[in-house]
Amino acid sequence: TNRLKIATIPGDGIGREVVPEGMRVLEAAGRRFNIAFQFDEVDWSCERYKKLGSMMPADGLEQFRNHDAVFLGAVGWPEVPDHVSLWGLLIPIRREYQQYANVRPVRLLKGITSPLAGRGPEDIDFYVVRENVEGEYSEVGGRVYRGTEDEVAIQEAVFTRRGTDRILRYAFELARTRPRRHVTSATKSNGIIHSMPFWDERFAAIKAEYPDIATSQYHIDILTAHFVQHPDWFDVVVGSNLFGDILSDLGPAVAGSIGIAPSGNINPERTFPSMFEPVHGSAPDIAGKGIANPIGQIWSAAMMLEHLGHSDAAARIIEAIETVIADPASRTRDMGGRANTAECGRAIAEVV
Amino acid sequence: TNRLKIATIPGDGIGREVVPEGMRVLEAAGRRFNIAFQFDEVDWSCERYKKLGSMMPADGLEQFRNHDAVFLGAVGWPEVPDHVSLWGLLIPIRREYQQYANVRPVRLLKGITSPLAGRGPEDIDFYVVRENVEGEYSEVGGRVYRGTEDEVAIQEAVFTRRGTDRILRYAFELARTRPRRHVTSATKSNGIIHSMPFWDERFAAIKAEYPDIATSQYHIDILTAHFVQHPDWFDVVVGSNLFGDILSDLGPAVAGSIGIAPSGNINPERTFPSMFEPVHGSAPDIAGKGIANPIGQIWSAAMMLEHLGHSDAAARIIEAIETVIADPASRTRDMGGRANTAECGRAIAEVV
Ligand SMILES: CC(C)[C@H](C(=O)O)[C@@H](O)C(=O)O
Ligand SMILES: CC(C)[C@H](C(=O)O)[C@@H](O)C(=O)O
Repeated sequence: TNRLKIATIPGDGIGREVVPEGMRVLEAAGRRFNIAFQFDEVDWSCERYKKLGSMMPADGLEQFRNHDAVFLGAVGWPEVPDHVSLWGLLIPIRREYQQYANVRPVRLLKGITSPLAGRGPEDIDFYVVRENVEGEYSEVGGRVYRGTEDEVAIQEAVFTRRGTDRILRYAFELARTRPRRHVTSATKSNGIIHSMPFWDERFAAIKAEYPDIATSQYHIDILTAHFVQHPDWFDVVVGSNLFGDILSDLGPAVAGSIGIAPSGNINPERTFPSMFEPVHGSAPDIAGKGIANPIGQIWSAAMMLEHLGHSDAAARIIEAIETVIADPASRTRDMGGRANTAECGRAIAEVV
Repeated sequence: TNRLKIATIPGDGIGREVVPEGMRVLEAAGRRFNIAFQFDEVDWSCERYKKLGSMMPADGLEQFRNHDAVFLGAVGWPEVPDHVSLWGLLIPIRREYQQYANVRPVRLLKGITSPLAGRGPEDIDFYVVRENVEGEYSEVGGRVYRGTEDEVAIQEAVFTRRGTDRILRYAFELARTRPRRHVTSATKSNGIIHSMPFWDERFAAIKAEYPDIATSQYHIDILTAHFVQHPDWFDVVVGSNLFGDILSDLGPAVAGSIGIAPSGNINPERTFPSMFEPVHGSAPDIAGKGIANPIGQIWSAAMMLEHLGHSDAAARIIEAIETVIADPASRTRDMGGRANTAECGRAIAEVV
């Protein structure tokens, strides 16, 4: 039996309702594939912030350093400003654990209808790889003449060669595991004249290391248009922190999966645990009602197993999701069904 | 008779083929609505750059300062790097003429099929307003340790209160001319922590000046998803230089009009001429064949007339486009027809 130590952070809102369903499906998969899970749960959240003044303990990340992975629900709550909840929990985990690759599968699952006319599962199946720790999301910058007519706000984007090369290499390595072996780079070197030409140079340099991988590159503006018009063009799409963030919401939207999309925050060197979380947020409007769709969390569990070397169990979970989606009775309301969170989770656990 | 002095810059590639069709349709509308055009054409282009070493004369913009508008085709050619052609022609015009509002209608025209399932003309009809002269497109930044392992590229985004307020006000003013009176702000204040919270503050301040206008705001990542899932939510969408750039390609893509979309680079104070250009580029692959679709240029001509106070003539041109598109024989190849550039242009001119 394999043993996996998983840190679980349900977080806020529906995070607390869907994480247990993710765990239920993991346990079920574990029974079938001989994996024993140890879940160590913490209450890091906006609720904790309101009680104790911080989203997590100062040394919080120390305790999970040797865990196999972090399994996160959702972070954020109306009374707590985003910069507190995100820069106090989500972003520090990504950065301290050097999870520099944010990976999201964009797949039109069987049983889901894409908002695009005439598209089926064979048309939409790619990955968005996003740089997750540097670039446009930086704390560098500030304001002059604050509060006056002359006010100026400066935001710096910082791209390092080390940070750029490693995310590009990650994308090329991922492409090697795929039949089409193709990487698309998201750029904007015609408008953003310091960082993006640098990105293009590094893309050309890393591409030279991978002669077996085909490539293309597009400016981010027209690339978003191509996602809508030609989702079948893409295999692995790599972008900076901001461009990757945009593409990894737009991708699931064209695949009809924005409410159920998973993501992995990956530390490819495995020096630190990687973190898996659904793309959706804490959904205060439906939190506490037990009606949230748990599929994003369950799909994230599959990504986690895949990352930890259990591809067979991961594939099985995806199949189970597709089986259950096919039956309207097991779907949650957002998918036109009547199941509640637990009913949907149980249905998936049963067929895993 | 009204007289309009128009500077025409056909530019490169298919720009030279479609600008004459735009002029043809303008002349036709002029005959009907009593407008006399004086077209002053210049050869500013990559070709000029290759011959003379610059995209335009140093004092080029002086000569058109008192013209009513600039009518541009397309700029860019394979052998000339983008930073030369764009920063040597397009961007200086936008900046010297203080065309700080880039405006693009996103409209599903009759006769066009949207890539979105089940969407008709009533579902997609909004404007994207993009800040056009500051923000993320700045010359501030550079590199340290260039060419070494330690290389770092810095790109600064610079947002001024004056620049931010005026584009927001432009969006609110535009919303006042529309039945739904709604403005959506594109932000990313949870990730980009200096410039975007500033943008949000200014949005809140300007919104207070327009109590008659409804508003919403979304982070750019989920906003791109909403463009695909709910294009009917939008009326006027305002964004920074980069976010606006992205949305103003994505918008036409969801409306099925990326090849025929127009844009206006507007100087709202009318101290300088505004510039009108199609969204498409110079299309080197089909240039010289006479098969380019002239509708983007013709639609840009309509926007120009609208800006210059001839709303009746502008509306007439849009109707003429819709009439002609309805007839497959007058469509160009990209739209599944067999007409060449001139045939399509003539067909539109005839029914104006
Ligand atoms: C050509 C390029 C610099 C430009 C931009 O990004 O401004 C283009 O995409 C546009 O939208 O006009
Ligand atoms: C919550 C926010 C800071 C975050 C981001 O932009 O990174 C989110 O959009 C995501 O993609 O995880």
